[in-house]
Amino acid sequence: MGDYLVSKFPTNIFTIIQDDLEAVEKALCSIIQSPVDLVNDITVHLVQAGGKRLRPALYLLCARGGSPNTTEILPMAVAIELIHMATLVHDDVIDNAATRRGRPTANARWGNHSSVLAGDYLWAKAFSLLTDNTDNKMLKILTNVICTMCEGEIVQLKEAFNPDQDEADYRLRVAQKTAGFIAASCELGAIAGGMDEGDAVQVREYGYSIGMAFQITDDILDITASAEQLGKPVGNDLRQGIVTLPVIYALKNSPRGGELRSIIEKQFMSDDDVKRGLEIIHQTKAVEYSYAQVNKYLQHARRVLPATLNNPVREALLAVADFVGLRKY
Amino acid sequence: MGDYLVSKFPTNIFTIIQDDLEAVEKALCSIIQSPVDLVNDITVHLVQAGGKRLRPALYLLCARGGSPNTTEILPMAVAIELIHMATLVHDDVIDNAATRRGRPTANARWGNHSSVLAGDYLWAKAFSLLTDNTDNKMLKILTNVICTMCEGEIVQLKEAFNPDQDEADYRLRVAQKTAGFIAASCELGAIAGGMDEGDAVQVREYGYSIGMAFQITDDILDITASAEQLGKPVGNDLRQGIVTLPVIYALKNSPRGGELRSIIEKQFMSDDDVKRGLEIIHQTKAVEYSYAQVNKYLQHARRVLPATLNNPVREALLAVADFVGLRKY
Repeated sequence: MGDYLVSKFPTNIFTIIQDDLEAVEKALCSIIQSPVDLVNDITVHLVQAGGKRLRPALYLLCARGGSPNTTEILPMAVAIELIHMATLVHDDVIDNAATRRGRPTANARWGNHSSVLAGDYLWAKAFSLLTDNTDNKMLKILTNVICTMCEGEIVQLKEAFNPDQDEADYRLRVAQKTAGFIAASCELGAIAGGMDEGDAVQVREYGYSIGMAFQITDDILDITASAEQLGKPVGNDLRQGIVTLPVIYALKNSPRGGELRSIIEKQFMSDDDVKRGLEIIHQTKAVEYSYAQVNKYLQHARRVLPATLNNPVREALLAVADFVGLRKY
Repeated sequence: MGDYLVSKFPTNIFTIIQDDLEAVEKALCSIIQSPVDLVNDITVHLVQAGGKRLRPALYLLCARGGSPNTTEILPMAVAIELIHMATLVHDDVIDNAATRRGRPTANARWGNHSSVLAGDYLWAKAFSLLTDNTDNKMLKILTNVICTMCEGEIVQLKEAFNPDQDEADYRLRVAQKTAGFIAASCELGAIAGGMDEGDAVQVREYGYSIGMAFQITDDILDITASAEQLGKPVGNDLRQGIVTLPVIYALKNSPRGGELRSIIEKQFMSDDDVKRGLEIIHQTKAVEYSYAQVNKYLQHARRVLPATLNNPVREALLAVADFVGLRKY
C-alpha cells in the first residue's frame, strides 16, 4: 500500500480543498495525542512523515462534488488517513522496511513490537472517531475494504518468491491491497456529498482506476527510480519476492526469463542478484508495457467521471489522473 | 492480555447463558470465513484454540442481568471476542510466543507477518459486525478501551527489563492492558441489558476487579505452575523482562533482591538465570502477598455487584469471582 511518493503531488491540485486538508491535518495531530509518551512519539513521527494525504484528498474532492455539510465530512477524512497510517506502519513491520519517504520507519526506530501496537492504536482511534456521526452504510464500506486489504496483503506474503503468477493474479492483488481502498475513499466522499447512487458507483470506478494506476506506477518506479528519488532502496519489491507487473512481463518475454525465475526462487537475493534481476527486466519492454497499462487505467478514470460533477472538482480529479501518469519518481 | 488458562473455567458457571455462548461460537465461525484460504487457516486456528470466552460470557451475563433483546446483544459479544483474539494474535507476535494454550501460536505456524495481518483482519471484522446495530455510546466505550489496551501494552514493552517499577506502576499497567477491557465487557453488557447508569457503573467496577484479580493470578501462575499446566514455558514473563507483582515484591523484600535485579537487567536471560530468578522469588512471601491482593480484588468484586441483579446472574458472577481466586493452573 506504499505511497511514499505521493508527497511529490503538486499542491495546486488540491487548492479547492485546501481548508479541508488543513482541518484534517489539525485533527490528525490532535486525535493521536496519547497520555503515553512513547505512543505520542511514534504517532507524531507517523503524522510528520507526511505524504500528500491522497486518500482523504480524493474523499474530500468527491464530497465537494456534491453538497456536503462540512463538519460532517471531516471525521471520515481523518479516519481514512488514520487507517492508511495504520496499514503503513504494519506494512513496514511486515516488510522489515528501514526507511519510508527517506526517513527511518517506526519499526526501525522503535522496534517491531511497538510498531504493531502503534498500528493497533491508530485502528482504534480511527473507529473511535467514526462512532459519533457516521452512517452504517459508510462504516460498512470502510470495514469491508479493510478486510479486503488485509486479505490482499496476506496473499502477497503467501505468493512471495513464487514466479508462477500471471497478470490476472497481479491485478487481483493490487485491487485488493491498494485500489479497493482508494475506490472506497472516493465512494465514501460521493455518499458524504449526497451524490445519487449511479454517480457514486462511477466515482468509485474512478478511484479504483486511479488506485490501479498508482500501484502499477509504484511497482515500475521500484525498478526505474533511484534510491534518492524513492526514499528507500531500489529493487526493494524484487528483493522481497513481490512479483510485480514488470517482473511478470520479463518472466514471460525475456530470453533470460529462466535466470530471472531462479533469482526469485532463491528467496535470499544478494545485491548482485537484485542487480541482475533489474538488468533482465530493463532489457525487455516491461517498463513500457507497464506504463501502457497505467495509461489505460488513467484513460478509464478520466472517462468514467460522472457528468454531474461541478467543474472545479472535475478539473482536480482529472489533474490527479494526469499526475499519477506523469510522476517518474 | 493472556488468558490461556481460562479454558479451565467450569462450564456450569455459564449454564444460564449456554444458548447465547453457542450462538456466539457459531457466529464466530461464520464471520471469520474469508475467500482467502490462508486467512481462513489462521482465523479457524484461532477460534479452535478455544478458551472459555470469558469476556463475551461476562458481557452476556451482565446483559442477562437486565432485560435485553437477544438478537441485539449477540453482535457485541462476538465483536468482543474478535477483538480479544486480535490482541492475542498480536501479543504472541510481540512476545515471540511459540505456544499458547498448549498449541503452536499463529506466528509460530504462519510467521509474524501473516499474524500481524490476521490480527488486523479480525479488528476490521469486529467493527464490521458492529456497524449494523450498535449505539454510539457503546462503540465509544469499546474503541476507547482498545486505545487504552494498546497504550498499556506499549508501556509494558517500554518498561521491560526495568527493575525500578513499583506496585502503582504495575497496577496501572494491568488496569490498562487487562482489567479495562473486562470492565468494559461488563459495562457494555449492563448497557445492552438496559440497566440504569448507577448499576452499570457498579457492574463495570465488578469487571475491573475481576480483571485485576485475573491478571495478578496469571502473573503468579507464571511463577508457580508447571509448563504442562500453563501450556507455555514457566517463567516466560520473567524471561521477557515483564516485571510482575511477585517480582516487584521479591525485588523489594528479598535479601537476594540485588541478584534478582541484575538478572532482570541482563535482558538476555539464560535458562539458569530464569531458574535462579524464580528461586529468589519463591524464597520470599511474594506468592502469598500476590494472592492476598487477588483476594482483595475478588472481595471487592463480590461486594460491588448491584442489588438489582436477578439471582441466577448474581450467582454466576459470584461463581466467576470464586473461580478466579481458586484456579491454580
